[in-house]
Amino acid sequence: MEEFIVSMRAVAREAGVSASTVSRYLRGELRLNSETERRVEAALKTTGHVRHRNKLRSVALVLPELSNPYFSHLAQVFVEAAQSRSLRTQIAVSNGSREREQEILDWVLASPDVDSAVYVSMSGDQKVLGGVPAHFPLVLLDESLEVAERLQASYVGADHYGGAYQATQYLVSAGHSRIAHLAGPQNLRSARERLSGYSEALQDRGIEFDEQLVLSGPYSEAFGAASLPRLIRIKNRPTAVFTASDIAAIGLISAGQHSGVRIPEDLSLIGFDGIPTGAWTSPRLATVVQPYSELAHMALDQIERQWRGEDTQPFNLPMTVAWGESVMPLQSGVV
Amino acid sequence: MEEFIVSMRAVAREAGVSASTVSRYLRGELRLNSETERRVEAALKTTGHVRHRNKLRSVALVLPELSNPYFSHLAQVFVEAAQSRSLRTQIAVSNGSREREQEILDWVLASPDVDSAVYVSMSGDQKVLGGVPAHFPLVLLDESLEVAERLQASYVGADHYGGAYQATQYLVSAGHSRIAHLAGPQNLRSARERLSGYSEALQDRGIEFDEQLVLSGPYSEAFGAASLPRLIRIKNRPTAVFTASDIAAIGLISAGQHSGVRIPEDLSLIGFDGIPTGAWTSPRLATVVQPYSELAHMALDQIERQWRGEDTQPFNLPMTVAWGESVMPLQSGVV
Repeated sequence: MEEFIVSMRAVAREAGVSASTVSRYLRGELRLNSETERRVEAALKTTGHVRHRNKLRSVALVLPELSNPYFSHLAQVFVEAAQSRSLRTQIAVSNGSREREQEILDWVLASPDVDSAVYVSMSGDQKVLGGVPAHFPLVLLDESLEVAERLQASYVGADHYGGAYQATQYLVSAGHSRIAHLAGPQNLRSARERLSGYSEALQDRGIEFDEQLVLSGPYSEAFGAASLPRLIRIKNRPTAVFTASDIAAIGLISAGQHSGVRIPEDLSLIGFDGIPTGAWTSPRLATVVQPYSELAHMALDQIERQWRGEDTQPFNLPMTVAWGESVMPLQSGVV
Repeated sequence: MEEFIVSMRAVAREAGVSASTVSRYLRGELRLNSETERRVEAALKTTGHVRHRNKLRSVALVLPELSNPYFSHLAQVFVEAAQSRSLRTQIAVSNGSREREQEILDWVLASPDVDSAVYVSMSGDQKVLGGVPAHFPLVLLDESLEVAERLQASYVGADHYGGAYQATQYLVSAGHSRIAHLAGPQNLRSARERLSGYSEALQDRGIEFDEQLVLSGPYSEAFGAASLPRLIRIKNRPTAVFTASDIAAIGLISAGQHSGVRIPEDLSLIGFDGIPTGAWTSPRLATVVQPYSELAHMALDQIERQWRGEDTQPFNLPMTVAWGESVMPLQSGVV
């Protein structure tokens, strides 16, 4: 397909800057102040200027960490999806610190080797995105942020609210009403959405929300394990738990086996994420599954659209409940 | 520290090339044929020329995959070790194919953004390293290869043989003599070394090696799970298993719980790697632990030495047995 290239002069005239400014800006050699950049971007749209770009070659995947199998599995699936599109993936790990997130984004923007970025935030701080120019393809994955309007960054993630709602309803349908929630870190919007899905699913079935039943902590096995003794000491003890991550559920199963709390006989359990290891726990873990491959491909679709100068929209992808042995119907008379 | 820079002219004279050739070669702008490169490198040594390099900024970590928690945990620990040295890590994933390994190494060498590489082979094919110039800092991690002499690449890995020997001896000491081995892919030297450690530990305790008891397959949960029915059908059935990876052991535990084979009562089990998840299985998995942090720091030490033009030596780091509930002493009269 031949690209139609409107003269840079028309763009420059429309934006009230010189043609050389437009040209250097488009080549990434010139950083404009935000007001001028806004005018140039608007002029590019108005005049229908087609960016004359080389082929998209590479994408940086910025992740909080790789010890959590959710992120490492997502990374593996992402690399395969990018490879199927002949894109090279470079993975950078922030360890969740705001400073490291900033350093990585600074490198992403400065590197001649990185054409685009898919960014999973952990600090939840959107300020790190302040320096991203409007024309740089960037997609937020998994964790949405309030991004400045001038940033074209779009968002792709699972429907955390809906997934949590389904998980909770699944337990309610099995007869449970005393349902605890091991929530994620509440600085993350995704974790807050999971908590909302849990509490609204309860309310919609006429079950009162009891804040005693909600414990909040990191996505880790250790948090799950440490929560079990706290859960079983609660007055009018819960008969089921929904954890906001599979690894917390794995920690809880392990603690149960060492303290004589049987899952699912004494406590039903459903996780969140659908990590591969969950299929190999005993009992096999019931969970809601992230659409890994769709997340990766949708994020890459949006990167490719932005590279071509097309608009993108935020997307929430549906999650699905996966059957497991860790949930059993509550027998009447128990509790 | 001030660096002493011997004139390039002396190097050029010694090597019989022009000063501009030496200069462009040192700046990475010129690829020499192997004979000329050998002469220039020899002249650099003879004249005591100190490479005038910028600060080492970045290291590429090339991994086979991220779904296996051994590799993702190694990556996480490596990123933290590099960060503590103010080095940026870029992770690339080969998915074990020779072609992808070659593409990644080509990118590593061509990128202005990558100063060095730590390379974990999966194809076991050393030819992919053919294009690496002698002055480029490169360390083989985990999987050693027969590398061409002119390549300065050094190797850092765990003592796979010694780790397997210890694991097997641990089972023998618990009274087992019918000990099966789920071996790794035999194209990998590390997997062959684990098999040797197993068979020699048996021989040293006067137990005959029985090839019926060795099954070979990928490092995966599925391989471990699929192996259990084969193991229990063996005449004079094994009472213990040593798996060459923890994830195969996790698959075997899962299959045991679904088929009524109790671990450790019916079958003792020890893994290999020491992945974090192994601490959360039920029973808790006995294993031999890779020295993750030492592997990462030793590899980075060698990268830094090579960057400074110093020689490096291959290193095998010791592994240690970690206690678990998956091994129990064989009671006399059983079998």
